[in-house]
Amino acid sequence: MNPAGGLPRGGTGRAGRPTLAVVGATGVVGTVLLGLLSERADVWGEIRLVASERSAGRKLTVRGEQVEVLALAEDVFDGADVALFAVPGEVAAHWAPAAVSRGAVAVDGSAAFRMDPDVPLVVPEVNARAARVRPRGIVAGPCCTTLTMIVALGALHAEWCLEELSVASYQAVSASGRCGVDTLREQLAAVAGTEAGTQPGDLRRTVGDTGPYPAPIALNVVPFAGSFAGDGWTTEELAVRGESRKVLGLPRLRVSATCVRVPVVTTHSAAVRARFENEVTAEKAHEILAGAPGVVVCDDPAAGEFPTPADAVGTDPAWVGRIRRSLDDPQGLEFFVCGDNLRKGAALNTVQIGELIAAELREGRPRLP
Amino acid sequence: MNPAGGLPRGGTGRAGRPTLAVVGATGVVGTVLLGLLSERADVWGEIRLVASERSAGRKLTVRGEQVEVLALAEDVFDGADVALFAVPGEVAAHWAPAAVSRGAVAVDGSAAFRMDPDVPLVVPEVNARAARVRPRGIVAGPCCTTLTMIVALGALHAEWCLEELSVASYQAVSASGRCGVDTLREQLAAVAGTEAGTQPGDLRRTVGDTGPYPAPIALNVVPFAGSFAGDGWTTEELAVRGESRKVLGLPRLRVSATCVRVPVVTTHSAAVRARFENEVTAEKAHEILAGAPGVVVCDDPAAGEFPTPADAVGTDPAWVGRIRRSLDDPQGLEFFVCGDNLRKGAALNTVQIGELIAAELREGRPRLP
Repeated sequence: MNPAGGLPRGGTGRAGRPTLAVVGATGVVGTVLLGLLSERADVWGEIRLVASERSAGRKLTVRGEQVEVLALAEDVFDGADVALFAVPGEVAAHWAPAAVSRGAVAVDGSAAFRMDPDVPLVVPEVNARAARVRPRGIVAGPCCTTLTMIVALGALHAEWCLEELSVASYQAVSASGRCGVDTLREQLAAVAGTEAGTQPGDLRRTVGDTGPYPAPIALNVVPFAGSFAGDGWTTEELAVRGESRKVLGLPRLRVSATCVRVPVVTTHSAAVRARFENEVTAEKAHEILAGAPGVVVCDDPAAGEFPTPADAVGTDPAWVGRIRRSLDDPQGLEFFVCGDNLRKGAALNTVQIGELIAAELREGRPRLP
Repeated sequence: MNPAGGLPRGGTGRAGRPTLAVVGATGVVGTVLLGLLSERADVWGEIRLVASERSAGRKLTVRGEQVEVLALAEDVFDGADVALFAVPGEVAAHWAPAAVSRGAVAVDGSAAFRMDPDVPLVVPEVNARAARVRPRGIVAGPCCTTLTMIVALGALHAEWCLEELSVASYQAVSASGRCGVDTLREQLAAVAGTEAGTQPGDLRRTVGDTGPYPAPIALNVVPFAGSFAGDGWTTEELAVRGESRKVLGLPRLRVSATCVRVPVVTTHSAAVRARFENEVTAEKAHEILAGAPGVVVCDDPAAGEFPTPADAVGTDPAWVGRIRRSLDDPQGLEFFVCGDNLRKGAALNTVQIGELIAAELREGRPRLP
């Protein structure tokens, strides 16, 4: 199948709808993305699935139909209105501009363009309007750690004005892709039934290969995510700071973050302390968050109700609990939040941005069949 | 063996040294405590091992000798100079005063007396002198979460004066006793080789019984430790606040804490943000911590060096790494710290306090053979 030129713009009922390309369709995030495209209200005409050369020709199911995977090349973007990228940053850095040059709006979930001043960084529940101004034709989404907490923070900020943020993360291995999940599963198999984790060095000996991580991840926590960025910081921690500032439109927001990998398959968590310009109450925070799109409040600790990854995995919203006012600061609010790093933390946010663009195309440049 | 009355005060070479009773000798912390008594410079005369009725008569090894376990009763304290308690708070609440009434100084690792204004709360590296003033004859040690970070914080505070503390913990299951460890091991066996942790609810179904925890602990993190204390807080979080204030002698210190249980067997970790009255630098923090007793600096993230529970387990010091100055606050310092919750977090601190008392007894009331 040659994707260029005269392809039909979707089947019956889809005529006139925008054409979508999904780049990275076979990866961990791509797989979730196809699931979301199949579950959500369908706004798309043709959907083209794109991946690396070695996956070309495979057939994947999206919207209940088998679709053949195309090899990544410039002409797959011809006639595409929107291209969603679920690929590593170095791939997006080249191919998102290529998609734009063929006429598509590129939506990128990688780190490649997040801090580019000519690329809006968008979380639809927080700053949807920012997606409309895209000098490079590219819209980016934040990293999964920022996305875990930013929807809840955005709602609270709208009420009270955020001035300081302190975050400690509990990050799942699926954010490192298949090798992260495989490494944890293999290490769990190695430690199951042993006494590992009780004597110095025994865990390293038992798990052997640490895969993509600098230390064992089974029965351990690893205070290092991303890569080293100098002055003691990691790229992931600087990303949380820079992206929170950009999404919230607060370029001088004070942010401190410690990013820690934990032996959880999917769903990031964060312990958040937020300080606002105004006094807060836990009751009002409940009210704000209960009414915020993309947030579920799960907060009755006396009854054992608070979010954990086991509850949030596979779901779309941010689950917020353990909400309380700081004991020593009437402007301080603390909470714990869990969000599926493959859904809202990656695929879902990308799809939502794609849908914003689709709506804009429908409004602004109606396409007739 | 009748422990009361005319027991010999230890064998040859131990004459004149204080007599020690260890209450809770058969528990998880008690086991570590006996190991420490066997490893450390021996300051004790007779050591009596005490546990509940059902463990009486068992023989345990301490200092290379087999010692029969005595059933907890008032007369086990007759002639004891120091009694170390490694038992639940409700047991200590009754038996520590009983030991005092028989003439011993009681050192309690439980929560029973920590916030009693007539009981000093002691971390020997930080406030050893406080152990000398004990109106009730009891000295308490903080909870394992406070102990994870307080030695490093104490050293930094001595230089810069702490004014605000924000902590997120990563707490190991052995702090819940044998049932915590057994629960994690059983859940790990249940999830090993499965796909659990990827779909809503599948983890709860796979692990079944959650043991002492309100949610699965394998492949999960649980933002709840201790019990519910009202206003959204847990007892563990309030303990971190109250104990940090008391040990550091800062009754108005601003503290926020979120305590989270993670699937680690032994060794608590904490992501700490500390704000001081004075400006800080990471270099000076390294220098202070490298010279602080009870602290090991492990901090070269560019070379993959930072502390994890797998490295710190089974060792005595607090392992500190990821040390950096806050990007948006020259008075803010952030670091990650790991400490064995059974050693410094429990048994070691108790033993160290016991040794302080032993030294005081040697100085103040010399006992001749």
